[in-house]
Amino acid sequence: MSYKLFIPGPTAVSEKTLRTMVQPMIGHRSKDFIALYRSLQPGLQKIFGTKDHVYLSTSSSWGIMEGSLRNVVQKKVLCCMNGAFSDKWLDVANRCGLAASAIQTNWGQPIEPGALRSELATGVYDTVTIIHSETSCGCMSDLPALGIVLREFPDVVSIVDTVSSCSAMPIDKDANGIDILITGSQKAFALPPGMAMLSPSVKALDRAAKGNTRGYYFDLLEFQKNHEGGMTPSTPVITLIYALKSKLDDIQEEGLEARFARHARLNKAVRAWGESWGFSLFPRPGFGSVTLNCFANTRSADLVALNKLLKDNHGFVIDGGYGKLKGKTFRISNMGDETDETISDLLQALDTVLSKLGLGKP
Amino acid sequence: MSYKLFIPGPTAVSEKTLRTMVQPMIGHRSKDFIALYRSLQPGLQKIFGTKDHVYLSTSSSWGIMEGSLRNVVQKKVLCCMNGAFSDKWLDVANRCGLAASAIQTNWGQPIEPGALRSELATGVYDTVTIIHSETSCGCMSDLPALGIVLREFPDVVSIVDTVSSCSAMPIDKDANGIDILITGSQKAFALPPGMAMLSPSVKALDRAAKGNTRGYYFDLLEFQKNHEGGMTPSTPVITLIYALKSKLDDIQEEGLEARFARHARLNKAVRAWGESWGFSLFPRPGFGSVTLNCFANTRSADLVALNKLLKDNHGFVIDGGYGKLKGKTFRISNMGDETDETISDLLQALDTVLSKLGLGKP
Repeated sequence: MSYKLFIPGPTAVSEKTLRTMVQPMIGHRSKDFIALYRSLQPGLQKIFGTKDHVYLSTSSSWGIMEGSLRNVVQKKVLCCMNGAFSDKWLDVANRCGLAASAIQTNWGQPIEPGALRSELATGVYDTVTIIHSETSCGCMSDLPALGIVLREFPDVVSIVDTVSSCSAMPIDKDANGIDILITGSQKAFALPPGMAMLSPSVKALDRAAKGNTRGYYFDLLEFQKNHEGGMTPSTPVITLIYALKSKLDDIQEEGLEARFARHARLNKAVRAWGESWGFSLFPRPGFGSVTLNCFANTRSADLVALNKLLKDNHGFVIDGGYGKLKGKTFRISNMGDETDETISDLLQALDTVLSKLGLGKP
Repeated sequence: MSYKLFIPGPTAVSEKTLRTMVQPMIGHRSKDFIALYRSLQPGLQKIFGTKDHVYLSTSSSWGIMEGSLRNVVQKKVLCCMNGAFSDKWLDVANRCGLAASAIQTNWGQPIEPGALRSELATGVYDTVTIIHSETSCGCMSDLPALGIVLREFPDVVSIVDTVSSCSAMPIDKDANGIDILITGSQKAFALPPGMAMLSPSVKALDRAAKGNTRGYYFDLLEFQKNHEGGMTPSTPVITLIYALKSKLDDIQEEGLEARFARHARLNKAVRAWGESWGFSLFPRPGFGSVTLNCFANTRSADLVALNKLLKDNHGFVIDGGYGKLKGKTFRISNMGDETDETISDLLQALDTVLSKLGLGKP
């Protein structure tokens, strides 16, 4: 049985996007590929808010998140941790044998600019990792506020994961002092999983050039060298590049501002719906992600039963909580191609299901 | 303008296979994904000739080729080099900071079992890399003969790339003493690029467990842990997994033996055609790849003009030589879904084009 995902990744992919993948293969060293690759740059740079180049990595985001560490950490990395994915970044740094410490806050609390400043001011770090929108708990830190701090430390390379925010709101990579911006195909972009996009600053490339632990597959200098020829270092995931091309056309047609406004509007609609049922937002007020709502299960709904009814009777699937928050929170995505209508359909279905489960509006 | 590739990767992908990617997304931690993932195992194990597990890596083959080195090289790796890709493996090992040496033979010459034995007998290596079918020059080494040598060195972990041979002929991983078998989606399997498949032996996993340079993204133990739950460590490239499922069904329907016979037959047909025009095979006689023919351009054909006419007038593209062999060789693939009819169409078109270029049959 087919059903539609409203989980925060992988996001539902429109049939239009999927159909763009039904195109003949082209050689990845051919003129046709080079033209395709280069045609993506203006759109990606605009969405990222950068004059730097944007590379395509044949991997999910974790590949290049680990790869970025191997490229630029030569002293010590500071990992800003406030959810499952940002926590994991410290673990990955350790597994790569890199010196690493953390600012650890509770899941759902944003990264505090003051705490970031104090820690970077120790001078022991040359790299910092931040997840802008912590999908695991729906918490979004204040990127411009963090950016002010990042710009105060020109010797520190910042790596920022925007997998669930990039293209849904302004990221302003250059203005916000982000040295390596990373995003994936399968969340805010609403493309199928399997490709990451990244943009390193000149500072990040210079740092990478000074080290010798880059390896090959995720070597930023290899990306840059191939980028100059309109290509990727290794065989690219061509079907997802077809899909990205189509998506960038869609985004241009809608207009970035309209896209941002749509995400903000749908996000508020879901939030208001949740609150109308007495579910409070899990993250600190004012720091909910713009592309998903993570609700505390304050009414102790049976989330397994809820999702079963939702799927069986309505063909929709939401998320029942990530990791240690399983059962204690639930998450609803408004990423990608969702519209007032699709979100309204979901919320009506959820109304029906919650009533079936015996809950009433408070 | 749309055209069909007869280059040795990416291979032309059938519309049937492409259409399987037009399916709704599923969560990669869902029961549906687990069922899909597990359903692939029997077919992959049969094609690989192994009782070991087969993992899916969200990367092109080079990702896991580098990753495998980081997992298992703890002393020194021997790289068997006889073409562009096997040469590159030494470079990648060096870039990872690993101790590495090579058996270097000329492009187009197979890896000699005797040379492999002598070198491994020095006792300085704990790992060896081999490319079964060197796509760059169409040379295929004798896997069973090399396998006899590999089995003589139980302390050495062998990593074998079969990107352009696996599924087109018997590989017999277990019988041939292969510890880590690696293949990609985009060559012999005729799937779109962007996914690698790999199968490590227990010996390889044990070795990996003894080291601490595995990192995260390509950590074999992470693959194994997730495999036990029917999942991948990181977000998988779901659309290619849909395509793989369809392809395995196709392979089962055709029958492996019939598939092997088809590749052998088409390969011979192309070889006979080339020889009828006076082009000799580039690799040493008896060691041509079963999925492609790399011809020496012994008649000094203008390969750029040839490919332009072939593409413009017939909608086909062949390869005009890889790297230092550009212009000096040309390569024709018979991988994947090619049939007597499609190969016959290509060869007729090539007849026309060569005549147009003023060449006659010798």
